[in-house]
Amino acid sequence: MRRTIQGGLGRLKERLFRVGEDWYFLVALGVLMALISYAMNFAIGRVVQAHKWLYRELGDGHLLRYLSWTVYPVALLSFSSGFSQSITPSSGVPRSGIPEVKTILTGVILEDYLDIKNFGAKVVGLSCTLATGSTIFLGKLGPFVHLSVIIAAFLGRVRTKTIGEPENKTKEMEMLAAGAAVGVATVFAAPISGVLFSIEVMSSHFSVWDYWRGFFAATCGAFVFRLLAVFNNEQETITSVYKTSFPVDIPFDLPEIFFFVVLGAVCGILSCGYNYCQRTFLFFLKANRVTSKLLATSKPLYSALAAVVLASTTYPPGVGRFMASRLSMAEYLETLFDNSSWALMTKNSSPPWAAEPDPQNLWWEWCHPQLTVFGTLVFFLVMKFLDADLATTIPIPAGYFLPIFIYGAAIGRLFGEVLSVAFPEGIVAGGKVNPIMPGAYALAGAAAFSGAVTHTLSTALLAFEVTGQIVHALPILMAVLAANAICQSHQPSFYDGTIIVKKLPYLPWIRGRKIGSHTVTVGHFMNCTLTTLAKDIPLEDVIKAVISTDVTQYPLVETTESQTLVGVVKRTDLVQALQTEPASWAPGQQPCLQDILANGCPTQPVTLQLSPETSLHETHNLFELLNLQTLFVTSRGRAVGSVSWVELKKAISALTNPPAPK
Amino acid sequence: MRRTIQGGLGRLKERLFRVGEDWYFLVALGVLMALISYAMNFAIGRVVQAHKWLYRELGDGHLLRYLSWTVYPVALLSFSSGFSQSITPSSGVPRSGIPEVKTILTGVILEDYLDIKNFGAKVVGLSCTLATGSTIFLGKLGPFVHLSVIIAAFLGRVRTKTIGEPENKTKEMEMLAAGAAVGVATVFAAPISGVLFSIEVMSSHFSVWDYWRGFFAATCGAFVFRLLAVFNNEQETITSVYKTSFPVDIPFDLPEIFFFVVLGAVCGILSCGYNYCQRTFLFFLKANRVTSKLLATSKPLYSALAAVVLASTTYPPGVGRFMASRLSMAEYLETLFDNSSWALMTKNSSPPWAAEPDPQNLWWEWCHPQLTVFGTLVFFLVMKFLDADLATTIPIPAGYFLPIFIYGAAIGRLFGEVLSVAFPEGIVAGGKVNPIMPGAYALAGAAAFSGAVTHTLSTALLAFEVTGQIVHALPILMAVLAANAICQSHQPSFYDGTIIVKKLPYLPWIRGRKIGSHTVTVGHFMNCTLTTLAKDIPLEDVIKAVISTDVTQYPLVETTESQTLVGVVKRTDLVQALQTEPASWAPGQQPCLQDILANGCPTQPVTLQLSPETSLHETHNLFELLNLQTLFVTSRGRAVGSVSWVELKKAISALTNPPAPK
Repeated sequence: MRRTIQGGLGRLKERLFRVGEDWYFLVALGVLMALISYAMNFAIGRVVQAHKWLYRELGDGHLLRYLSWTVYPVALLSFSSGFSQSITPSSGVPRSGIPEVKTILTGVILEDYLDIKNFGAKVVGLSCTLATGSTIFLGKLGPFVHLSVIIAAFLGRVRTKTIGEPENKTKEMEMLAAGAAVGVATVFAAPISGVLFSIEVMSSHFSVWDYWRGFFAATCGAFVFRLLAVFNNEQETITSVYKTSFPVDIPFDLPEIFFFVVLGAVCGILSCGYNYCQRTFLFFLKANRVTSKLLATSKPLYSALAAVVLASTTYPPGVGRFMASRLSMAEYLETLFDNSSWALMTKNSSPPWAAEPDPQNLWWEWCHPQLTVFGTLVFFLVMKFLDADLATTIPIPAGYFLPIFIYGAAIGRLFGEVLSVAFPEGIVAGGKVNPIMPGAYALAGAAAFSGAVTHTLSTALLAFEVTGQIVHALPILMAVLAANAICQSHQPSFYDGTIIVKKLPYLPWIRGRKIGSHTVTVGHFMNCTLTTLAKDIPLEDVIKAVISTDVTQYPLVETTESQTLVGVVKRTDLVQALQTEPASWAPGQQPCLQDILANGCPTQPVTLQLSPETSLHETHNLFELLNLQTLFVTSRGRAVGSVSWVELKKAISALTNPPAPK
Repeated sequence: MRRTIQGGLGRLKERLFRVGEDWYFLVALGVLMALISYAMNFAIGRVVQAHKWLYRELGDGHLLRYLSWTVYPVALLSFSSGFSQSITPSSGVPRSGIPEVKTILTGVILEDYLDIKNFGAKVVGLSCTLATGSTIFLGKLGPFVHLSVIIAAFLGRVRTKTIGEPENKTKEMEMLAAGAAVGVATVFAAPISGVLFSIEVMSSHFSVWDYWRGFFAATCGAFVFRLLAVFNNEQETITSVYKTSFPVDIPFDLPEIFFFVVLGAVCGILSCGYNYCQRTFLFFLKANRVTSKLLATSKPLYSALAAVVLASTTYPPGVGRFMASRLSMAEYLETLFDNSSWALMTKNSSPPWAAEPDPQNLWWEWCHPQLTVFGTLVFFLVMKFLDADLATTIPIPAGYFLPIFIYGAAIGRLFGEVLSVAFPEGIVAGGKVNPIMPGAYALAGAAAFSGAVTHTLSTALLAFEVTGQIVHALPILMAVLAANAICQSHQPSFYDGTIIVKKLPYLPWIRGRKIGSHTVTVGHFMNCTLTTLAKDIPLEDVIKAVISTDVTQYPLVETTESQTLVGVVKRTDLVQALQTEPASWAPGQQPCLQDILANGCPTQPVTLQLSPETSLHETHNLFELLNLQTLFVTSRGRAVGSVSWVELKKAISALTNPPAPK
């Protein structure tokens, strides 16, 4: 009896502590990121409080107040920019991070990008950025995903070392994918949408296995993140981040669905404009001589200049009072998701303009007596459109998701307020009449606008998880679908736009999936100028070939005549073998490639070959699923060409914009 | 001006009515399935009402009442079984449909399975099954997914014909995947979890493109489905199907998270037992001579016998009163998700045992005075475990998800009631004390148990969408994760179990992903006995080869000596070409394969070749993503073997259960 129990316990122990399984690393990843996320929030909160206190205590002198309002973000931003650049000069302008992570997850190796030494710089830089509060209007998501992926890569290396198993690219990629999911989940404490958002943004194919792992890690992360809030007495129990209190019984009347879809379409159109302006502005900065020089040589100066502009436009006694600039990012969302209609409540009497925001009635900030609610919201939308365009160009680690989310919420709020004035009694359907809740439209607007800008649908789910209410499930989903339909057919996503501007390697989608695309085969677009190395060519020719080309690997063929593909030899291996070439060749006999291969130059087998008849779609699927870089094309065993993402990209863009017939 | 508007309208029209895009077909699919789902529900509701009326009006005579209780389901089930068999005898035992759909989505062609003529039989059969109410304890999901996929395949064919584009397997598969998502979404009016559930159950890889299309179609479906309920005056506005009203402010205390996870583990263990018994029972029925003969020859008789057993055990004046058998499936869920604790409410006085269920206090059904709440719940769980095992063997179209969901809810309810008695004041944490809500545990149990049985995580999301509340997001997710961790590591899922019993072709996962699996390459497990057809062999040898083997396609090689793979020729094409072989060969000259190929026998190009060095993982990925059936393996251009799912399956099972060293 006792032995049975002991045996059972032993088996349980063995099962739990089997190091080969990486569940522990997933838990570690989730918990670690939650701790970091919470610690950052905590520190940032203190800095923001200090700023508020300083601003309040400085009295009524305009100059002092203006200085305290602007110097703070200027100092933080230039420090953030300078610091993160001085530590990691190689990784270039480190801004968001999501485009780079996306590129890495498609299998491209970006040097140093996942190095653990970037971690500290990014944490400090990001904290400085966020400590500027809503003045600079930037978020946390992008860099945090990057941080999470760095930690995931690090943990993956630790795991490989502790178990002593050989490195494996598939396993590494699995870990990185989980890292991306955890990053999103620990910022918003939203595990489900975190996983889905990271999938939608990062990849075009994914395995259910990765999705389960992501869920597991993200749930651990979100749980610990919210747990810390409870332990710190901020919360009574584990709840959502931006809680709403929409009525559950009849949250909306049936005809309102129509207005939700219209709002979705409006958000879709605006998001096209946003993405377009954003991309154009980045291009302009790169093309313009002054700004490109400024950005290349003195990033802190550029950051400081941008910070001055942004802080000046939000200075509360200046125009800032017309755009509720005294609210923090979280307060923006809290007020915008408010149930009651501000327009109806301020119809007869506007609230007083207080010297300080009233914590009980934060929404009063949105109702400046001179401009009314509508004026404030419109002014906010116009100014933040420009501000956000400027803010995204500052070379600091910063996320662009939360600003987009808030911007969308403001669009939705404006729409909702207009509706509530148009139908002050609510929209009559059937017997009962329920007043319109602009807060619900703000939520729908946030989900639809951020979904359209990033080309994702999971923002709808994010809206539910973040607010803890799912009563508007169908209308919000429909708004997000409408917004996505418009934006996806007209503009690349925000992240793809950055990839295009930064010229990162990336594989576009085959859009529209017109039937014409199904007849394109590899033979049409493969790279036919292939430098093959035959085993029987003399070493001189090998050296010539290596000097004249700069590919990373050469296809190895049996004989010059047959061109039968037998393997792949890496350029680095070949160069090394050529350099250490022994002088002991039999004189008179010309050494050929076969000899140095026999001498130990390693070759790789070809695991997968395409044929000229393989379709573009199949090839595209292969590249995306297996994270491939290059595949060789053989016909009857002969190596006839190669396909890499460059050729694929050309083929796809030729499909979308057919070349003019000559 | 006018011309501009006209031009704009023209462009809009062109854009909207471009038939090549299949958005319209997705909308049509969603709307159609919603209409069918609603119409079925409506008709079934009437039949159930009639049964209730009959049972009520028959007075107190026990015999009459018993007859009216049992004859109804017996008649319905034997009709359902007989009818669906007589119309579509070829598709065998049509039960759930999800395993078959899963097999089809991996690329296997099951004859006639998606034929539109199956549609009517399945609708009628399913309606009859559901009209038996909670007596037989069966659901709607599986057959409805099958119906939806049938319609999707039909719409796909219509589209191909209207546009006149050539048939394309990728497009067909996209449509089928959308169909599966719509099926789940229109049963529960839960678009998000519908898409995710169908992905998790059906496939192991999926593309974001399919996921978006699924979302779109599922949202249309869910919207129309709920809209119909509003139009029919069942609902005030569009809300969830099984609405709950948990308090939003403090839905649970922090320590309760622990109990949620424990509940998840309990559900995981029970689900292992459930899946095991289910599979064993099905095997037993197949192996036993009497039952297998009965099932093969007289299905209606078997159905009738099973219905008698099931109806007798639920007869309310008999033991049925100890298991709340007067409630319908929807009422089961409604009562189990109730907020207040029944155990505490009935502590001092049990509710009266009414002759009729009281519509205001349906939960009284669960508190039989003789057994108390706990007794009733335990009795329910035990009886339904046996009943469900029996019910799943009846050869009728029926879904097994809703019963599992209800069963899980009962487990959770029991757990919650025990907790509420153990902590009558609630679990004290910090200052405030909140009573324990057994309804929340019921919801968590439903999600965890159904998730574990089907090996999915999206049941958590389904629980939120179906109830319209997401306040328990984290605890329920954690319960589902715990349950899944246990069940996935010990038992195949419910659907995989059916696939195993039915011996459908299916590709298992590479479980555990141990590192040992990464060194297995195609060379180790490929099928080396390949019948190649060389272009230069005489026709006699071709005929011999065709007669002696029965594969569907032959690799075509250049010469017998070189074995260079040049293409694939289908067996059917070859047989046809051999039969129509002209007698005009030059006498004396022996005709060879090349001649009949030159005469017009079609060959297919080889689009993808493996090498003996390709790893098992890569091959597995390829097969799953591209829905492949067979790939040829070449080494230096020579065809050396082939890999199909049979070889893959063997290799994977050899990994899991290493063969004993000889």
